[in-house]
Amino acid sequence: MEPIRSLSQMVQILRSRSIRRRVAVVCPNDPHTEYVIIRALREEIAEFLLVTDDEHLEVAWHLRSASPNFVHIYTAGTPDEAAMLAVHLVRTGEADILMKGLINTDNLLRAVLHKEQGLLPRGGVLSHVAVARVPLYHKLLFFSDAAVIPRPTLEQFRAFIQHDLALCRKLGHEEPRVALLHCSEKVNEKFPHTLSYVQLKEEASQGMFGPVFMDGPMDAKTACDAHSGEIKGLSSPVVGNADILVFPNIEAGNTFYKTLSLFGDADIAGMLTGTLAPVVVPSRSDSGNSKYYSLVLACLAGNQND
Amino acid sequence: MEPIRSLSQMVQILRSRSIRRRVAVVCPNDPHTEYVIIRALREEIAEFLLVTDDEHLEVAWHLRSASPNFVHIYTAGTPDEAAMLAVHLVRTGEADILMKGLINTDNLLRAVLHKEQGLLPRGGVLSHVAVARVPLYHKLLFFSDAAVIPRPTLEQFRAFIQHDLALCRKLGHEEPRVALLHCSEKVNEKFPHTLSYVQLKEEASQGMFGPVFMDGPMDAKTACDAHSGEIKGLSSPVVGNADILVFPNIEAGNTFYKTLSLFGDADIAGMLTGTLAPVVVPSRSDSGNSKYYSLVLACLAGNQND
Repeated sequence: MEPIRSLSQMVQILRSRSIRRRVAVVCPNDPHTEYVIIRALREEIAEFLLVTDDEHLEVAWHLRSASPNFVHIYTAGTPDEAAMLAVHLVRTGEADILMKGLINTDNLLRAVLHKEQGLLPRGGVLSHVAVARVPLYHKLLFFSDAAVIPRPTLEQFRAFIQHDLALCRKLGHEEPRVALLHCSEKVNEKFPHTLSYVQLKEEASQGMFGPVFMDGPMDAKTACDAHSGEIKGLSSPVVGNADILVFPNIEAGNTFYKTLSLFGDADIAGMLTGTLAPVVVPSRSDSGNSKYYSLVLACLAGNQND
Repeated sequence: MEPIRSLSQMVQILRSRSIRRRVAVVCPNDPHTEYVIIRALREEIAEFLLVTDDEHLEVAWHLRSASPNFVHIYTAGTPDEAAMLAVHLVRTGEADILMKGLINTDNLLRAVLHKEQGLLPRGGVLSHVAVARVPLYHKLLFFSDAAVIPRPTLEQFRAFIQHDLALCRKLGHEEPRVALLHCSEKVNEKFPHTLSYVQLKEEASQGMFGPVFMDGPMDAKTACDAHSGEIKGLSSPVVGNADILVFPNIEAGNTFYKTLSLFGDADIAGMLTGTLAPVVVPSRSDSGNSKYYSLVLACLAGNQND
């Protein structure tokens, strides 16, 4: 399979393979969520299990009228109960994906992370992965972690790199190129993440991550611009040609996300991973396109059994 | 004075005021430095004190031949001695600005930070300030710290915000809008910089920073995009309209710098400040334009007596 090069191409892949995921939506009663649901129904890539609290049943019925065969309604008393029920639907295999509607992210995550009845396997690491289509880059750019893990430990780096690699391979990159980001090329104990990077590269060279190129520390420009690498006398399969950017902390990852979307004219899809099934948690300030492509990305990723 | 809105406008200001700074250059023997010197001579905004080690005297003579009245040559045995001599020229008032040529940044900084004979006042804080012209933003964007301070303490935040404000005011913003950046709006003791932000806002409200609007924590998109602020129900003179972005750590600041320059099609000027005079330290992977405008910015900033 050729690597996917745009977000809209993800839709074509789903359609050409007649993949139609079952998406459990918690509290689908805000305009953004409705937009995503209606567009996904029209493009025939998903069917929906709408889990609504008592107060908003009418919105759910309205959505169902658009496509009765592909919209199912479940009711729960409160948003928190709706979250628990939706998580249950994913656990029991009735849904493939969990998506957030009008519920506080922290409350949704409480249900997702519940020790006995949640979606995170024992010892698993929840992380965020984003996929960006940037006009000034020659392919899709995957990156973590812009939203969940504040200061990744070695173990957390290892886990979320595995998540990102799995997704990147599903989108057609057989041997992804992973850049471990810092503000320079220097390994320095004052910056503990650079020590983690040395260990991760060692593990990659031993095959622990499967087929992969991994390099760093390097800055974001060196990772994505071959000319910058040349000037610095750096050359590796990763320099100037990264598929996956690994950020040292959440502020750097979040800055990249926001700067790309604001000043790089990029479309960005994102989801939570490490869970039994992808969890779609659109950010309020994302564009409609970004919100929709986040669901599309989750549909393409599928659950852990795919 | 109307705020300056582009980097090239800085050149016009210097020319219209007939400001011609004296720039001491350490080891001006690489093509990038030569380019900057020749362009500055042609645009008549600077004269140069070239401090060269014994080996590269010929390059200096070649540069002098282009403009004998505005190029002066000083010799030192080694690059480290050249750095010390250039710093001395600034300390004694013979030069207004220090600029790096082909010398290791760490070696140059050793001379700059020398306790008795360096350029940092007792108790001063060295920091980096960058000024970006981004096609998708409506004015210049100032930010710190992308290059010097790894994890700013409250005292370091306070100092570099003062440096940035001084520069921002010199470029015509009488009441700059300062955004204190984080990945969300939440103050959280797990993120100590958000506690510093609370204190800084308090100090700003007491007038410690002079005429200023200061707000945060907020993310980069909220700081620069009014629509994102609206969606989140946030409104302040800073939201969507920031002049100065304060980053919580060097990786976030550096990521912003590199992402803007690579994917935001931005021109960025930068310099070290907090010293008796600006220090221009172009990064190897900066464009020729960025390197030149870094010198122009320093010329406009002038030394602490301006």
